[in-house]
Amino acid sequence: MSALLPHHDGSPLHVSDDAPALGDTVTVRLRVPLGYGPLAAVRTRSNPDHEPEWTDAVRTGVIDGWEWWEAPITVRNRRHGYRFLLIHEDADGSKGRVEWLNQTGIHRIETLDAEDFALVAHPAPPAWLHDSVIYQVFPDRFARSAQADRHPTPEWAIPAAWDDPFEPVLPGRSQQFYGGDLPGIIERLDHLVGLGVNLLYLTPIFPAASNHRYDAASFERVDPLLGGDEAYIRLIEEAHARGIRVIGDLTTNHSGDRHEWFQAAYGNPGAATETFYYFTDDANTEYEKWLGTPTLPKFNWSSPALRERFITGEDSVVAKWLKPPYNADGWRIDVANMTGRLGDIDLNAEVRQLMRETMHTIAPDTILLGESTNDAASDLQGDGWHGAMTYPSFTRPLWGWLCEPNGEPYLTAEGEWRTEPWFFGQPLGGMPRYTARDVADAVVRFTGSIPWRVRLGNMQALDTHDTGRFATHTLPGTVPVAVGLSVTLPGVPVVFAGDEFGLTGVDGEASRTPMPWGTESEPDVAERLALYRELIRLRREHPALGTGGLRWLHVDDETIVFVRESAAESVLVLATRGGADAVLPAGGLVGAPLAQPLYGDAGLSVRPDGATALTASGPAFAAWRLPGVTAPIVGDSGEARA
Amino acid sequence: MSALLPHHDGSPLHVSDDAPALGDTVTVRLRVPLGYGPLAAVRTRSNPDHEPEWTDAVRTGVIDGWEWWEAPITVRNRRHGYRFLLIHEDADGSKGRVEWLNQTGIHRIETLDAEDFALVAHPAPPAWLHDSVIYQVFPDRFARSAQADRHPTPEWAIPAAWDDPFEPVLPGRSQQFYGGDLPGIIERLDHLVGLGVNLLYLTPIFPAASNHRYDAASFERVDPLLGGDEAYIRLIEEAHARGIRVIGDLTTNHSGDRHEWFQAAYGNPGAATETFYYFTDDANTEYEKWLGTPTLPKFNWSSPALRERFITGEDSVVAKWLKPPYNADGWRIDVANMTGRLGDIDLNAEVRQLMRETMHTIAPDTILLGESTNDAASDLQGDGWHGAMTYPSFTRPLWGWLCEPNGEPYLTAEGEWRTEPWFFGQPLGGMPRYTARDVADAVVRFTGSIPWRVRLGNMQALDTHDTGRFATHTLPGTVPVAVGLSVTLPGVPVVFAGDEFGLTGVDGEASRTPMPWGTESEPDVAERLALYRELIRLRREHPALGTGGLRWLHVDDETIVFVRESAAESVLVLATRGGADAVLPAGGLVGAPLAQPLYGDAGLSVRPDGATALTASGPAFAAWRLPGVTAPIVGDSGEARA
Repeated sequence: MSALLPHHDGSPLHVSDDAPALGDTVTVRLRVPLGYGPLAAVRTRSNPDHEPEWTDAVRTGVIDGWEWWEAPITVRNRRHGYRFLLIHEDADGSKGRVEWLNQTGIHRIETLDAEDFALVAHPAPPAWLHDSVIYQVFPDRFARSAQADRHPTPEWAIPAAWDDPFEPVLPGRSQQFYGGDLPGIIERLDHLVGLGVNLLYLTPIFPAASNHRYDAASFERVDPLLGGDEAYIRLIEEAHARGIRVIGDLTTNHSGDRHEWFQAAYGNPGAATETFYYFTDDANTEYEKWLGTPTLPKFNWSSPALRERFITGEDSVVAKWLKPPYNADGWRIDVANMTGRLGDIDLNAEVRQLMRETMHTIAPDTILLGESTNDAASDLQGDGWHGAMTYPSFTRPLWGWLCEPNGEPYLTAEGEWRTEPWFFGQPLGGMPRYTARDVADAVVRFTGSIPWRVRLGNMQALDTHDTGRFATHTLPGTVPVAVGLSVTLPGVPVVFAGDEFGLTGVDGEASRTPMPWGTESEPDVAERLALYRELIRLRREHPALGTGGLRWLHVDDETIVFVRESAAESVLVLATRGGADAVLPAGGLVGAPLAQPLYGDAGLSVRPDGATALTASGPAFAAWRLPGVTAPIVGDSGEARA
Repeated sequence: MSALLPHHDGSPLHVSDDAPALGDTVTVRLRVPLGYGPLAAVRTRSNPDHEPEWTDAVRTGVIDGWEWWEAPITVRNRRHGYRFLLIHEDADGSKGRVEWLNQTGIHRIETLDAEDFALVAHPAPPAWLHDSVIYQVFPDRFARSAQADRHPTPEWAIPAAWDDPFEPVLPGRSQQFYGGDLPGIIERLDHLVGLGVNLLYLTPIFPAASNHRYDAASFERVDPLLGGDEAYIRLIEEAHARGIRVIGDLTTNHSGDRHEWFQAAYGNPGAATETFYYFTDDANTEYEKWLGTPTLPKFNWSSPALRERFITGEDSVVAKWLKPPYNADGWRIDVANMTGRLGDIDLNAEVRQLMRETMHTIAPDTILLGESTNDAASDLQGDGWHGAMTYPSFTRPLWGWLCEPNGEPYLTAEGEWRTEPWFFGQPLGGMPRYTARDVADAVVRFTGSIPWRVRLGNMQALDTHDTGRFATHTLPGTVPVAVGLSVTLPGVPVVFAGDEFGLTGVDGEASRTPMPWGTESEPDVAERLALYRELIRLRREHPALGTGGLRWLHVDDETIVFVRESAAESVLVLATRGGADAVLPAGGLVGAPLAQPLYGDAGLSVRPDGATALTASGPAFAAWRLPGVTAPIVGDSGEARA
């Protein structure tokens, strides 16, 4: 990864249309630092219907030390992959060695289809997705209105007062009920406004028999304990009035065993909803479950009746909540990775495509995100999910880089002390030990097979309701580095409510502690809140951080430097753990003398030889505003050669 | 790539069952050179239904300087991916850094699902596939029997005598008709026996209007010009009598426009076979074609009638020729990569799975290979093709390494002189310039996402009827290196008839020159024939070259050293272009002092420190027999720790 490498990505500087239809011709642009060549020719190689097709690029000109090439590509498949071929010119003028450029970088040898750049000819997500900063709320733990006092504690629950500590051991771990509700969220919407977030993601709000509500008893109504439908309608209205969109959380892999559909079919052969599940005995009492959990019966997506009831029907679950009077702005899909998959069966693509098509028809301005907490590439080709809640391309590498390798002992659900820190359910024996280089490698590896447009929809969370809190084990001073990267790398930043208060928690359930309202003015909290406010503002004030290109400029064991580029402006980003002393060669970064500091303490100086020196004592996160990037218009230079 | 790295692959040393059923539990074994660790733990990570699942490995013992671990994996999906997690022990006894091992090697950071090792729970191919050496015959150019003189030259053809030169320019290029036939092949079967090949692959033998016959006019009968059905039956009988199996070549992407199905439907709306093709106008006169070629109308696999007629029906095309009285041993499928794919349509998986299931039912001892001349991984997960005719994982890297970068000028079909050598239709401006390291990287890259069992079925051709001849541009002395690698790397060796005579040809059609029978005793030809005989014998006498594991021992810019390992024996292989001077560290290669030369001129000596030195002046190919690898039996050592 160097500042002086040929570059292409899916951003508007390099692709004329990121939402083409089948049959459209798109212009793709490559830029090459002067001195890297000379190049005798540049070509694109696509693979429509799995058979190579080539186009010739023309050299459109040289601006700011970079030569630009462009080529037409006609979109023939819904995911239309392409790569660049660079043919060098030998010193004697003959054609020489070749190189390939794809989403993982520059290669001496042929490259894999899966790692091609890719145009996507499915309908695009609404543009607002890429301007969003997500705020994730776990309703039981966010805010409790006075109205909540009127509700009885459900029979399965252990009532907890807002200040009660989290009980790490069962049954408290899973049964503590703090009673947060939707009116409570409404009361705190101005906190969201103050932070600058603009997309509220609520974990489930349907009736259930748990504090997390992923075991839905119905998809027809909002849990009365949360305030019911009325409160949900009002929450969305109030949020919209503040410029905040709202998405819900839907379990397409399973329901709860108290779900009305399951209850109707359990023990009742011939029931109308029996095909919704995998009953494995004649009596309808044995059934497939999510990872063997009896309370979570798995949906059988081969059932046309389920498809209609859940997705395609007039008043389907998917549709109902996106339409008036609810008007939610989309869905995050729980366990999207396992949905429709069971041993020999894989209906995942059908289900996600059906959901997407339905939403596109009934509410095209909505988004669809899928939980896929590991390698998400196979499911993330643009046909269904607009993006994923996924961890290997951002979250886990950050933890590996910025957390202490050995955590403090903590109590497990079974009441045993465990000395190895929780790490996403991976039995690694501790935190992995990533360098900054490993982080960059992981970002490239786990986004290299995802089309750019879809990658922009991936959720860049430091933690969620399913993980420990990032701040639990972080090395001193590294939270700004992590939050800074979450708002500057491609993807949608996510704040899990409470992170901005500095909450900690050793695992996914311990992270669901109630919001510590009233502590805002405590010095540590005030500092953390300010950090989030500033970095969210950075993101929202600079659209290049949403849709601009990504060019890695410098990576070493301690430091990552990259730039997000657009025609209007660019943002230079430095993130370091142990301190930075990076030199970007002359030409690698255009406009460095005009750099304006946007955030952080770091030095930027342009040397007499034109190189840019970046220095910081670590840990540090810094960003600068740079002029936008200018691409030649074809024909302007007269330099085009066929 | 080093001799002292942890190792696993899909071979019997490392996997207890390479043909499991869903639900079976398979034992997978990892071995680690002593001194690489110590390891605190080894685990496997699978991803059934796209959700991680872990098993613990136990250390089963140490043999010959390697420690072995083994773990159970229960096969939950038809392609069940898995990787190894290695947890190192720090000097202070605490758990330390982790590493991952997958099909592309050892990694510091998390790895991609696509590159997992993979068990395949589809029915396995017949074991004979892996003992096979393929001999590819292009019937018009192989041998002409006296009987052929009785046939008139077809109206579309330009008759050519056997000694006539190939006409590079149209119309000769595509219309020359030499009149080779099946009786001619029968007369030459002893040539195949003499070479040692045991699987005859015939390009199409159905009636057509070209010398290549990929534009079939029927799939119901063998072209009378080739001797008709009777000759085909006799050829297969005679071949079988000599221990040679025979596979045919089928076009599932298209037929010829003279095909009886197309003729019946063309201009005839409502015809029974009109759904077999993509007619795009009401008159049935416009239609989809293979890459726009009017003579090759594309099949429409959404047609149930086509599926029945071609694949599933009682006397379907696929079935008929595998049953008595024909008894062919399988199919190579032409343009398998594009079959069923057209813009927004992708029925490829359905078609290949349907063919495979049908063949497994009616003739389970047959094989199914698919042409997929670029990255074949997406289609090669074990659900359809037993292997692929594919070029990026072997053929093209070899050309890039062992051919002159600049070829001689040659005449194109249009009669223009072209100075850039043909390279698989890739407009690279010349041959790519691969080092030996690039070759090894390409092998790893393009097999890294293919399950081991399927990789073993890939065709390892130096050239085919669709490519120039490898010998055309080779650097002096490198043919043995290339042929040597084709018989020793995992996959099925392929000899394109004529290679063993040293034929050349600048492109795919120029390579189809008639066999130069009668030149066998010319010194150059005799030498080349001897080379093929010896190397084919090497392959066939050492089953480890068919199904043994693959461990890279040394790779540098000029030299590749690897070993194919089994319990019975191992074969050490050295291939060098510019000369070898490789040192394998002590412990990396067990049994080196017992090495017995099998082929080639190269030095092997074991130094006092235990390292193995390999030397050769290049170009050279050499192989040695080594003792087999012994794995500990669980419980033997008492060393297992949970």
